[in-house]
Formats: sequence, C-alpha cells, structure tokens
Amino acid sequence: MQTQFNPTQNYTIIIFGATGDLTKRKLLPSFYHQFHEGNMPKNFKIIAFARRPYSTDDYLDFINDVFMENLEHPSDLLDDFFSHVTYLQGDVTQKEAYDTLKAHLTKVEEIPSHRLYYLATAPQLYEPIITHLGDYCLHVSDDLMRNIVIEKPFGQNLASAEKLNALLHQYFKEEQIFRIDHYLGKETAQNILFFRFANSIFEPLWNRRYIDSVHIDVAESGTIHYRAGYYDKAGIFRDMFQNHLLQLLTLIAMEPPANFEASSLQYEKMKVLQSLRPADPDYITFGQYEGYLDAPGVAENSRTPTYALVPAYVDNWRWQGVPFFLRSGKALKEKTSRIMIEFRCPPHLLFDKNTGFEPNKIVIQIQPNEGIQLRFETKKPNSPQQTVTTSMDFNYQTGLKDMRLPTAYERLLLDALLGDTSLFTHAREIELSWKFIDPINDYWEKETEQEPMRYTPGTM
Amino acid sequence: MQTQFNPTQNYTIIIFGATGDLTKRKLLPSFYHQFHEGNMPKNFKIIAFARRPYSTDDYLDFINDVFMENLEHPSDLLDDFFSHVTYLQGDVTQKEAYDTLKAHLTKVEEIPSHRLYYLATAPQLYEPIITHLGDYCLHVSDDLMRNIVIEKPFGQNLASAEKLNALLHQYFKEEQIFRIDHYLGKETAQNILFFRFANSIFEPLWNRRYIDSVHIDVAESGTIHYRAGYYDKAGIFRDMFQNHLLQLLTLIAMEPPANFEASSLQYEKMKVLQSLRPADPDYITFGQYEGYLDAPGVAENSRTPTYALVPAYVDNWRWQGVPFFLRSGKALKEKTSRIMIEFRCPPHLLFDKNTGFEPNKIVIQIQPNEGIQLRFETKKPNSPQQTVTTSMDFNYQTGLKDMRLPTAYERLLLDALLGDTSLFTHAREIELSWKFIDPINDYWEKETEQEPMRYTPGTM
Repeated sequence: MQTQFNPTQNYTIIIFGATGDLTKRKLLPSFYHQFHEGNMPKNFKIIAFARRPYSTDDYLDFINDVFMENLEHPSDLLDDFFSHVTYLQGDVTQKEAYDTLKAHLTKVEEIPSHRLYYLATAPQLYEPIITHLGDYCLHVSDDLMRNIVIEKPFGQNLASAEKLNALLHQYFKEEQIFRIDHYLGKETAQNILFFRFANSIFEPLWNRRYIDSVHIDVAESGTIHYRAGYYDKAGIFRDMFQNHLLQLLTLIAMEPPANFEASSLQYEKMKVLQSLRPADPDYITFGQYEGYLDAPGVAENSRTPTYALVPAYVDNWRWQGVPFFLRSGKALKEKTSRIMIEFRCPPHLLFDKNTGFEPNKIVIQIQPNEGIQLRFETKKPNSPQQTVTTSMDFNYQTGLKDMRLPTAYERLLLDALLGDTSLFTHAREIELSWKFIDPINDYWEKETEQEPMRYTPGTM
Repeated sequence: MQTQFNPTQNYTIIIFGATGDLTKRKLLPSFYHQFHEGNMPKNFKIIAFARRPYSTDDYLDFINDVFMENLEHPSDLLDDFFSHVTYLQGDVTQKEAYDTLKAHLTKVEEIPSHRLYYLATAPQLYEPIITHLGDYCLHVSDDLMRNIVIEKPFGQNLASAEKLNALLHQYFKEEQIFRIDHYLGKETAQNILFFRFANSIFEPLWNRRYIDSVHIDVAESGTIHYRAGYYDKAGIFRDMFQNHLLQLLTLIAMEPPANFEASSLQYEKMKVLQSLRPADPDYITFGQYEGYLDAPGVAENSRTPTYALVPAYVDNWRWQGVPFFLRSGKALKEKTSRIMIEFRCPPHLLFDKNTGFEPNKIVIQIQPNEGIQLRFETKKPNSPQQTVTTSMDFNYQTGLKDMRLPTAYERLLLDALLGDTSLFTHAREIELSWKFIDPINDYWEKETEQEPMRYTPGTM
C-alpha cells in the first residue's frame, strides 16, 4: 500500500457532476483542505466536468458561495488551489463528450498522469459514464493508475448492484474501483480497528464470552426535505442500513486481518457479512415519523419506513448468540452515530446488588463529540458495599488538542488518489449487504400490509 | 457483617494515648466528621485516657488548636460532640489506672455498652495495656463487643509480631482485634476490589496472560524530620513495605473472595502473601537521600535506606512470572501513591510500529487526585497507520462531584466500632508480611556492607 505520493508523477482528478451539491460542498472543499495541509501531490489537476456552458472562471464563480461556506481552512491558498482547476463542458451521455475530455486531458496533463474519475452524478448516469470511459480506453494504462470512485447508492438491490459491478468489471479491475461509504472515512470509524488491534486489553474481551450485545445507532434529527421523492422509493434500509450500519457492524465484528492492506481488510469484512443470519421481519421495528406523508414527493399512504431497529446476528464462533441491534431513523431527537458495546454482568456479584448496578459498556461516539467512553462501576464513597456507575472518557477534541480531525471525505479522496482501497467497499461486500437487506425491503414493500409505527419528530 | 449501628445499644470508645498527636490530629477529628455526617451511633461516649492531670475541660483546651486545624466539617456541632467526651487521668503501666477506668466506665455508661479500646500510644505500651485489660477482664462480655485497635508498627520483625499476636490472643479473639493500616481505609485502595470484582471487563485480563508487570509506588516528598531516631532503626522496609506496599499488593493480586466478609477477604490476602517468593537482595535497589545523615537522631554513617525498589513475585497460577515492582522512598519529587498495571503488547501489530507505541496501562491513583486512568492507543488523526497514546480518565473529585471522599481514618474508626475487620490486617497476614520483609532487613542490617545509593532530595 502506498501512503505517499510520488513527487515525480502527476495526478489528474476528473469530477463528473461538477456543478452538483456534492462537488461544491464536499469534494472541492476537501481537496482544498488537503492542499492547505500540504497533503496533495506536488503536481495535480482537477477537471470539473458538467453540462452547463461555463468557462472555468464562470464555474469558479458559480461554486463560490457554497464552496466558501464549507471551508474550514484559511482561504490564503485559494488562488493557488484554483489554478489547478479547469472546467470542461459536456454531456456524459454523449460520445462527443469523451472526445472533448480526451483532448482536454492531453492539453492539461503535462506528462502522462495518474487519473481518478469521480462519479458525483445521479446514479442513472453511472452506466453511460463507465461504458464510455471503457469504450474510449480511458480505463487502462500500462503503468499509471486509472481509478474510479462511485458514490452511493450502489444499486437499489442485489440484482442492480450485481449488474453495476459486472459493468465496472468489464473495464476496471477491482483494485481500481472505489465504492465510497463516507462513514468509513470518519476518524472514529477507522479508529475502531486501531482501538481493537493496537491495544492488548480489548481484544480478549471482544467476543460472545464477555459481550452481551452490541448497539449501533445512526440517528438523524433532520426530516426528508427535498429528497422525499428519492427517499420514498429507497427507504431507510437502502439509505442507511445497507451501507453505513452494516459497514460499522463489520468493523466491530471482524476477525484480526492478516495485515492492514485493503484486500485483507475487505476479506475479513466479507466474512462477517457472509456470517449474517437472515433477518427475521417479525423482530424488526418499522417506524415512520408523523408528517412524513405531507412531504412533497411522498406517495399517498406511503408505508416507507423512516426508522428501523433490526436485531442482527453474526453466526460464527466469536459472535454466536450476541445480538447486534442496528438502529437508524430520521427526525429523531438528535443527530448522533454511536456504537455501544454492552458487556455481560460479572459472573458473581460480591457487593450490594440493589444499588443501580449497570453492566460495563464501551461507547464509541462516531459523531458528534468524537470519542470513547468506558462506563464502569466504582465503590460509592463512604459506603461499605454500594457501587456507583462512573465513566472514563476520551474525547478527540480535548484528548488530541493539536490534531485536527479531517472530514471523512478528505481522508477518502486522498486514499482514492493514492490508490488505497482499504476504506472502500469491495464488490462482494456490497452484494452481501444487499443479500441481507433485500428480504427486509421485500417484506415491507411486498409481503406485509402492516403500517409502520408512527412517531413524533424529535422524540427518542 | 453489621453495617448499621443498633440504635438501642450504646458504644464507648476508650482512647489510650489521648494527648498524643494521632488522637488530636486524626482520631478526634475523624470521629467528629462522622458525627457531623450522622454516621456515629446514637449513644456513644469517648473516654480520652492519658497521664497528664487534666480535667475534661483542660483536655479539650489542650487539644483545641491541633484539633481545629484538622477539621474539615463546619464546627456547628462541636459542643454537642464534645459533650460525649470525658477525660480520664491514669498511667497505663500501673494497675490502679484500670481500677479508675472501670469506675469511670460504670459512671459514664448509662447501660452496658459495646467498647472499643484504641491503642494510640507508643508501641512499648501495647504490652502493659493489653495485659491489664485482660487481667481486669475488660476484654470479655457475654453479648457486647470488646474490640481493640492496634496502631502500626505491629512488631519490628516476625518474632516481635508473633509475640504481640500471642499476647493479644491470650485475651482477645482474632475478630476482636483491629490492626490498623490506614492505607486500607483510603477509598481508592478499597475501590481496587470494586474495580476488579464489580466489573466484568477487568478480571478476564487480570493475570499473567495479559499483564506484563505491576508497579506499586508510594512516594513521599518529606524527609524524616523529628522521627529520625525511630526511623533510623526502622528503615523504609518496616515503615512502608511491610504494611502499605504489601497490603496494596494483596488487593491487586488476590483471587475473588467467596464473599465480602472480613474472614474471606483476609483469607485471600493471606494466600497472596503465602505465595510471595522470597526477595533476592541482589535485585533490590537501596537508596538514602543526601542529607539524611545530618538529621538529629540518625546514627553516624547510618546505612538505613530511605528508598527501595523491590521486585516481588507471586508464585501462583495467576501471577507466575509477573514482576510486582514495589517502590517507596522519602524525600522524592512528589508525594504520590499509585499502582500501575502494565499490559503486554498486542501479540501482533498490524500498524506502523515506529510511532511511540506504548503498551496499555491502567493507573490507579491512590493519592493525591484519586482516580483511575486507562492509557491506550488510538489512531493518529489524518495519518493512515500511525497510532498515538491517549487516555481515558476517571477522577473521583470531578466524576463523583457531590460525594465527599472520607479520610482513611474516618472509615476505619467506624468499621472498628461496628466490629467489621474487613479493612484490617489479620494476625497471619502481619506475620507473613514480616516473613517476606525480615530477610531484606537482615541483609542490609547484617549481611552486606554495601552503601545505599545516594540521591538528591526532590529527585525522581
């Protein structure tokens, strides 16, 4: 795995969907932050590709407001950064666009360069872009990288994901394909593996013998807003479970990998997904917040869940019998992502049992207030036998004062540019995730007439 | 085990050595604090016994300044508290004193009462007091407690400790005898057992498989001062190791007791002491701070150590091969008592090994800043593979804000009055401790001519 850019080589990033929200709010600000911190390669170009008839200056004007809003670093290097950017107009569904692109690349690239194709478009454009890149042989090079980043959603179910994978594999090798799940780019998500495997004291406890249950919560406070049309068809399982929640589950549940390389990590994650017991719909809670039906774009009497609690089981030696409670919802009380490991009670209690005794817990707070908390029992002062629950806390902000936490995108964009797929999702992982999710979606979409439980926005 | 006083019964505390420093500074203020918090029995008397010809008022005047200096609670209940105290004049080496005591008890006690004899005198007076209490049958009662508290030092070696135990056992049963080691009364020392046995996540790690070494440090910043005459004969092993350090070691190393009763706890502590491998003097560091020889009362060219580092081994299934580094000294940089558990390195490191990687540690801070810290590795933000050592912290003062930590004496006096020997040292524990310490003392006192390493006060 490469962790440094080669200073004698050049890198080109081609962003499809350059006028979209993601590019303005996440991609370009993230590249700028990394540029500001000196983490970008010495020689790089960004080609912003979209349909609108802009010049590069027009384009930079167009993105300016949203871009600036999302800037966390001082703007002193903006001119320098933007001198690396050119805008290119074209319709990605048309062959001509790729002639233009080829010509533009020849012009912009001073020497043959590594390339990263970033698909920040609507999912229905993935197919024409991939096909055309392939047809124009833009996916191959003898000795330079030709990597492609695919944004989520990656398919709508197992069949469509398999189809998209097959298309990609027609041109790209698996190690060229970067299926992004920005949850994996969060420092606290990545830290799960460091927490587990850079310390000797957690791994011995990390199994069915000591762990009672695992609770993975990704709660959002916002409602559906403008995404209602998309969301009403997708639902919470496609939107959150298939990617974020199952990926977090794999990080908690995986065996120690042989090494820290992408293929080893992905292999261990796949093993977890392979071991997932099919979910039993009878034990799943489906919810929909009150007012959802009023959002424009939502079907009349829609039963689309905006909340779900799924007990998952990993049927292997380590986890047999330990429930993983996966929970996610919109319009909840607070926006928070958290993993709580609840340990079993001590096998024998020597002390007073009637004092609000709690089993031990490790809470990994992914956002906000990134940190780790260990809840444990201590002696209640001045009492002979009573215990009181207290905690040890580690907070990223206060614990590592001088170190800024990069955003998830900053990290992932750099990795894609370096060609490191460790924090990206393998084709097989995606398919195994859909294999777990599809029957749940089939259940609420086809098999049951059951209404989701209604909940008041801002509760729980 | 009784944890509550019987409200229909009366309690009498007889303090021998009532004009001494310990009584003024620790015992009476501690009884007052417990009185102020409503923890003393409803009906209690304190008889302050000493040689000076004082009236009760004289006595209260005499102790006033030092007593008030050591008061942590508001003085609003002082008059009430002192109405429970009477002074009694007598020479504890003379029989007549016990006639007087008997008469005074009859006068003071409204009904037959539980009694606690507190020996706060010089150690050479233990024998006459115990003998006379016995001869006057003050040690027996059909249904009331007759408990006796013995301050440290308990003997100067195994032989003298055995002799003192034999004398005590001539009259008192083991459960009536309270050998005090105030370290066991500290909340953080007591909490060691709660930390270990009220939580499920530490005990599985608490053995040779996961622990690399244990470090028990009791450092003092002060020099010998006025105690030089005593200290020069005693040395650091009698002063600190035989009691505090070995007691802390037993709390860390003991097996889970059958229950939380005194006899079960003491039995487990004894087992640890029985398993102690005799120390090898070749591996012990002996030190003496510069300037010690100038203290009045210190013998010319004294080789008495004021510092020592002793690697101890507990030869049993749990601890075989794990060194317990016991370290104590006077005139060190800071006054601190701390136990550090250092864990083994992870068996296999997936990550970058050259980044200041530290094995995990649990630090139990006994004083000051009572608390627990867990040092562990996290991912260094914005780096792909580097780790950084951080910590989770629990601090008694901030973590349990509304709960005052009682001083060690407050806790122990109440236990002695209640008849609970859990936090006191069993005869056999004392003897086993001396059995470990005697050869070390013999070595530096008799077998070697080796000079202790000199160190500058305030270092380390």
